[in-house]
Amino acid sequence: LQSKLPNVGTTIFTVMSALAAEKGAVNLGQGFPDFDCDPALVDAVTAAMKQGLNQYPPMAGVPVLREAIAAKIDALYAHAYDAATEITVTAGATQAILTAILCSVRAGDEVIVIEPAYDSYVPAIELSGGTPVFVQMEVGPDGYSVPWTKVAAAVTDRTRLIMINSPHNPTGSVLRAADLEALAAIVRGTGILIISDEVYEHMVYDAVRHESVCRHPELAARSFVISSFGKTYHVTGWKVGYVAAPAPLSAEFRKVHQFNVFTVNTPVQHALARYMSDPAPYLELPAFYQRKRDLFRAGLASTRFKLLPSDGTYFQCVDYSGISDMAEADFAKWLTAEIGVAAIPVSAFYHRPHESGIVRFCFAKRDETLHRALERLATL
Amino acid sequence: LQSKLPNVGTTIFTVMSALAAEKGAVNLGQGFPDFDCDPALVDAVTAAMKQGLNQYPPMAGVPVLREAIAAKIDALYAHAYDAATEITVTAGATQAILTAILCSVRAGDEVIVIEPAYDSYVPAIELSGGTPVFVQMEVGPDGYSVPWTKVAAAVTDRTRLIMINSPHNPTGSVLRAADLEALAAIVRGTGILIISDEVYEHMVYDAVRHESVCRHPELAARSFVISSFGKTYHVTGWKVGYVAAPAPLSAEFRKVHQFNVFTVNTPVQHALARYMSDPAPYLELPAFYQRKRDLFRAGLASTRFKLLPSDGTYFQCVDYSGISDMAEADFAKWLTAEIGVAAIPVSAFYHRPHESGIVRFCFAKRDETLHRALERLATL
Ligand SMILES: CSCCC(=O)C(=O)O
Ligand SMILES: CSCCC(=O)C(=O)O
Repeated sequence: LQSKLPNVGTTIFTVMSALAAEKGAVNLGQGFPDFDCDPALVDAVTAAMKQGLNQYPPMAGVPVLREAIAAKIDALYAHAYDAATEITVTAGATQAILTAILCSVRAGDEVIVIEPAYDSYVPAIELSGGTPVFVQMEVGPDGYSVPWTKVAAAVTDRTRLIMINSPHNPTGSVLRAADLEALAAIVRGTGILIISDEVYEHMVYDAVRHESVCRHPELAARSFVISSFGKTYHVTGWKVGYVAAPAPLSAEFRKVHQFNVFTVNTPVQHALARYMSDPAPYLELPAFYQRKRDLFRAGLASTRFKLLPSDGTYFQCVDYSGISDMAEADFAKWLTAEIGVAAIPVSAFYHRPHESGIVRFCFAKRDETLHRALERLATL
Repeated sequence: LQSKLPNVGTTIFTVMSALAAEKGAVNLGQGFPDFDCDPALVDAVTAAMKQGLNQYPPMAGVPVLREAIAAKIDALYAHAYDAATEITVTAGATQAILTAILCSVRAGDEVIVIEPAYDSYVPAIELSGGTPVFVQMEVGPDGYSVPWTKVAAAVTDRTRLIMINSPHNPTGSVLRAADLEALAAIVRGTGILIISDEVYEHMVYDAVRHESVCRHPELAARSFVISSFGKTYHVTGWKVGYVAAPAPLSAEFRKVHQFNVFTVNTPVQHALARYMSDPAPYLELPAFYQRKRDLFRAGLASTRFKLLPSDGTYFQCVDYSGISDMAEADFAKWLTAEIGVAAIPVSAFYHRPHESGIVRFCFAKRDETLHRALERLATL
């Protein structure tokens, strides 16, 4: 069998988690919390199962959950999606991304990918027969930013889709209103669609506001907006997300979705619907993670790492060029094996060798885990 | 957005379930039980969640579940798959089918589909850029059978894959050892791969034995064998299945899988692993469903329907040509709306208009549900 994805190996997240386990390192690599979810959420799943909600739900998701999602988007971003035709529950955000790409990209189409980029984007484009066109973010004293003039220059008459991601994995940067205006100016008058990966939507810090594409009617009208319950509710292993998109886009999304996973775990959907009726868990999330971010940054400040901004996500990037001139992947492995703290090389988010002397730490960890990591990093 | 699947509408299962709900009909259409799963299985999921098993599992599935699957296959079919490299847990069998096709079929490849065929096969082939090549099953006094000489005649040097399904949805027919020998003779010496959809593997009746492709080393060496926990354990809404395939095929499967869903609900995987340690539930399944099949067939015997054999699955096909000359889709809708029993037209499993005067009933229902349906069908 000749590989359709010859360049794909095991994801860096799996590689680093395995190495962390082998070496007994504190795992600040793969992005997942080392603390548990709210027991009320577990109880809600149990209750749904005991109610006998264990058979196929409707293909697009259980109506109560779709309505809860639409209500949340309306409350936070003042955009009224129709729950019946514009919201689809997915088996995680990654499945939503592949499905959105499969339904919209065909052989010969180009898709603009802004690097560093989450590692599923490019294989998904390739499986659709499309061609990724890369634009690199720029990194300056204020951190990473998207050079929109370069994005504009990358547009051709074959451009089908532009992928954006904010809050951004791995850099922790967050798009501002001016960024979305620049994007709107690029796509205005074209048939270009947008996939907006907003899985960290509820993790923005300080005075920063999450500029969901949903807030921008002009962009929302051509966008698949994707989010994740796993990230928001500390259940990355439950694999439930959603896509919000105008009805014509959702209709095409659902055609592929129904022949991909068909639908998503019924009791978990009912539990999420019930749990979402209280907005407190996601409204309190920024304060919860900002405290962890600040704790972690304060500890790193006395190390030889140079801190980049982290305006959103649960990731903190650091510049280690004052410590080592190793390549990022080597440094991340060395850090894991020798210092006992696993990190992710940012180079893993580029399609071609790209070294900036930066690695990513995940701070979605118990305070004691962060302290343990900081103690080890202080020895550097 | 120009559709990539212009011929796809809402699945017949959704259409008929909606009509059944609207008309208050007994729903023998969509294939799912109207009774609940074993409470012990619910308790196992709760226990896993309470143990904090709520974050990302390994990409290919939790090791204990992969080992339990490999052990089951070895016990039942005497084939030793390596749990580490040859078993992958999926978000249901449909996701396994799409992923197996996406990883192995490319533009220009042909895939042989034996009709009637489950409705996800063809869209999955089309999304991969492949071309479905159709062979129709034949229906005689002994029911449906695969004309292997026609399958052999459909093979070209572009044939990449042959899709088989046994026990077969919608016909309830079951492949015998001679069928698999005929298939082996066709693919011997070629590079043709096989997808064997065995989601009803634990539902075979009378003296019939399930001829899993796993029993046939020559075929297993080139096959993706797919099964479903939802069907076996009465939890169609949990969306967990698996694929077993030789390591080189599994490696390519996993490349696509990790960028499709990445992985599958963690607590459900742990619960299934624990629950599988007792083989009784799947060993007792044939007797459980055979009794329902016999009850349903006995009731139908005194109606004007002509019964086709049902050697496996939880489906019973009936010939209604003595009752009506309506087209199958019209008859199924009429039966739902006027008689109050929903069925699925077998014509929905063909790519081109194909009428044989046959509809499919699902007997995975409580006895009282079956009796209620039979009372209504007796009025015909
Ligand atoms: C899907 S495993 C990776 C989790 C994640 O999103 C990350 O670490 O970036
Ligand atoms: C995925 S909904 C359809 C269930 C089923 O397999 C069937 O009814 O044939």
